[in-house]
Amino acid sequence: MAYSVPHGSLGTIRHPMVWLRDQSFKEHMKPGKQSVSAEIITVGHELLQGNILNTNARFLGRELTGLGFTVKRQVSCPDQVTEIRDCLKEALGRSQLVILSGGLGPTPDDVTREGVASCFHVPLVLSEAQFARIKWFYKKFRRQSVPDLVREEALYPQNAVPLINRYGIALGFYLVVDTSLVVVLPGVPSELENMFHQLVRPLLRSRFGCFKRGLQLVVKMVGISEPEVMRRLGDRFVSPLFQFGIYPECGEITIRIRSHQPAILQSLIKKIKTLLDDFVYAYEDVSLGAVIGKILTRKKATLSVAESCTGGLLSSHITTIPGASRYFKGGLTAYANEVKKECLGISEVLLTRRGAVSQRVALEMAKKIRSKLKTTYGLGVTGIAGPSGGVRKKPVGLVYIALATPKKNHVWAHRFFGDRIQIQTRVVTQALEYLWREIR
Amino acid sequence: MAYSVPHGSLGTIRHPMVWLRDQSFKEHMKPGKQSVSAEIITVGHELLQGNILNTNARFLGRELTGLGFTVKRQVSCPDQVTEIRDCLKEALGRSQLVILSGGLGPTPDDVTREGVASCFHVPLVLSEAQFARIKWFYKKFRRQSVPDLVREEALYPQNAVPLINRYGIALGFYLVVDTSLVVVLPGVPSELENMFHQLVRPLLRSRFGCFKRGLQLVVKMVGISEPEVMRRLGDRFVSPLFQFGIYPECGEITIRIRSHQPAILQSLIKKIKTLLDDFVYAYEDVSLGAVIGKILTRKKATLSVAESCTGGLLSSHITTIPGASRYFKGGLTAYANEVKKECLGISEVLLTRRGAVSQRVALEMAKKIRSKLKTTYGLGVTGIAGPSGGVRKKPVGLVYIALATPKKNHVWAHRFFGDRIQIQTRVVTQALEYLWREIR
Repeated sequence: MAYSVPHGSLGTIRHPMVWLRDQSFKEHMKPGKQSVSAEIITVGHELLQGNILNTNARFLGRELTGLGFTVKRQVSCPDQVTEIRDCLKEALGRSQLVILSGGLGPTPDDVTREGVASCFHVPLVLSEAQFARIKWFYKKFRRQSVPDLVREEALYPQNAVPLINRYGIALGFYLVVDTSLVVVLPGVPSELENMFHQLVRPLLRSRFGCFKRGLQLVVKMVGISEPEVMRRLGDRFVSPLFQFGIYPECGEITIRIRSHQPAILQSLIKKIKTLLDDFVYAYEDVSLGAVIGKILTRKKATLSVAESCTGGLLSSHITTIPGASRYFKGGLTAYANEVKKECLGISEVLLTRRGAVSQRVALEMAKKIRSKLKTTYGLGVTGIAGPSGGVRKKPVGLVYIALATPKKNHVWAHRFFGDRIQIQTRVVTQALEYLWREIR
Repeated sequence: MAYSVPHGSLGTIRHPMVWLRDQSFKEHMKPGKQSVSAEIITVGHELLQGNILNTNARFLGRELTGLGFTVKRQVSCPDQVTEIRDCLKEALGRSQLVILSGGLGPTPDDVTREGVASCFHVPLVLSEAQFARIKWFYKKFRRQSVPDLVREEALYPQNAVPLINRYGIALGFYLVVDTSLVVVLPGVPSELENMFHQLVRPLLRSRFGCFKRGLQLVVKMVGISEPEVMRRLGDRFVSPLFQFGIYPECGEITIRIRSHQPAILQSLIKKIKTLLDDFVYAYEDVSLGAVIGKILTRKKATLSVAESCTGGLLSSHITTIPGASRYFKGGLTAYANEVKKECLGISEVLLTRRGAVSQRVALEMAKKIRSKLKTTYGLGVTGIAGPSGGVRKKPVGLVYIALATPKKNHVWAHRFFGDRIQIQTRVVTQALEYLWREIR
């Protein structure tokens, strides 16, 4: 469930603070120990059938890694009591922390609480605290009594400890099993994320102590291919002393190196700086848009964009960054030629002679939007994202990117590969790269 | 790896067509059999550590389900030979089809081919066909000889059959193990997807025959909550005769019902039409944007948008649909107040008196963009996406959505819940819902 209600408004009933009932297994996790293994189980047919993207697995993976856990496995299983039970049993044989999410809703396909209970042969019991919260919520926001179905969402296995959900209806819970911990959270991403930060994180810290945290070096690059990165780095990046990963994604390359020895990472970062610095836009986990935002803010410079084939994606990419209003004034999605003419004042003659997809039009778009919105920089993008609209001379993937600056105007031609959305995404990365190279 | 080269240009060396070496286990999968169980294994630290979203698991889940397989489990495991081997062994104990992806790159962290080979105690051998393709590719696009590292990507386990990769460097392969099939594909999404469609799909059809395909009913809705859907549907949607799933996502609800009996789905669709028709925008798996696009095209109507807090996302959402240029003329991202004034002609007085986030400004944005771009409909959106910028009277999540039509203009106030990106996404869905209700 996802409700359009303000976050704070669900917060008046105080929840029983979650603390430890026993400290027994904390001993296993003394500070200084290398790492604790964790496993993520996401429940739902919709995941296995590919109806939705598993954003929860990503969130939990990132958070647990950040806390120093080693995520050994992530499993998605169907909404079936026996499957959930089996996955949980197998995970407990491998890992000291198991986090399950999903299948806690009110509908008959939600059986995670039954699956967990059947693993330990216990019945389900009602959390009075969560049920009071549900009643209050229905009275205040729905002006009706709680439907029978929804009562289910306040149930939990008898051997568990409830984790009150202040962001929705479904109760979470946790169980201590020998030296392992099992945490069960709802599948709605906003509920899962808020409950993780406010309830699970403190629980993990107090359960597992402050074990030695793996250190991570992140290097983010544009304008270089994966084999070229590897050619430059050579053999020195194969070693049992650290874990090395390189990940290309839509025109960007990310390197992640993990080690428990800060000195090793220090020496690696020096080598990377010598070999690849011209392509690195950040030595931390931030987006290119955020780096550009920081530079523009520092320089008190502003930006505007006029885009055609990216259809708003370039603007949207820039404005997902909180605080973008400090440097981004606005953008025009000039999809039709009339819009290019009337809103940007690009001449009919130019559009007819050179065509909307041409160097000159891209350049005019960048210059005109820059002067119209009175910004320091203006980006112009025109091209053919496909799948149709391509011709021999101007095939799908042909894109012109222009950048207007106070001193000089630039334009570049590109031929991108992929489907419509891949082409649009790569164009956005490329346009942002040109801007970054100009302002850094 | 992802190369910015045109798709067709990698296609001149003909690949050995993949056919069956034995037909033995086809017998197990006679037409009419219920379904074949499948398992997806995605390999990579980056997945477990939450650095990237597992789009490959989604793609494979959707494709396999569409072909009639029952995806029983999806597992992500680290780039470790022993882990890959164990996951594959376990999967072979449960499922007749196992698809692995990822970890076939040239870098030292890519060990999937070693993991699979170690599962069957066989060495790796070189595919001359793939290596010839790699050499040709390097000569033509890189103007250099093949780096030593890259040769690795043409290796495969001795007991496997190569699957030539025409979209990149890394070879895929498949193995027949007793009555099961193991398919191994590269992790780059565009390579995986193209290879799946062109090589794996025919392989699965010929291996498993045309087994009875599960039928799926998809219902997509807006403007209703999950409990309300369930209240209306009642008990009749719990039955062993079909599999029922309901999935809320950012303001939309999707119902998926699977059954092997078309008559059951026919009777369910009738009930759903009686109970929920006012909220259903499609009885198939399409997006709201695509439905709107179809209606606008049919009516020869056009659309323009002026958006503030959604920062281009509304435009972008509309233009991800191929062929959007038939009805979408353009959009303005009026982020700064000057842009609202100068590009849309919204009066200074109005902006000062009512504020940029107000009913009147939303209405003016819709009306002005509609008249400026001469479209049938105009959408205007202004609000506070957060995390900062909210005040007591105008809190984060407050959004005004306006729709200008040839006959009448409308405006609605909303208070959305969530973080910046959730709010932006919900606003887009809500704006599209209003437009859909107007034009359907």
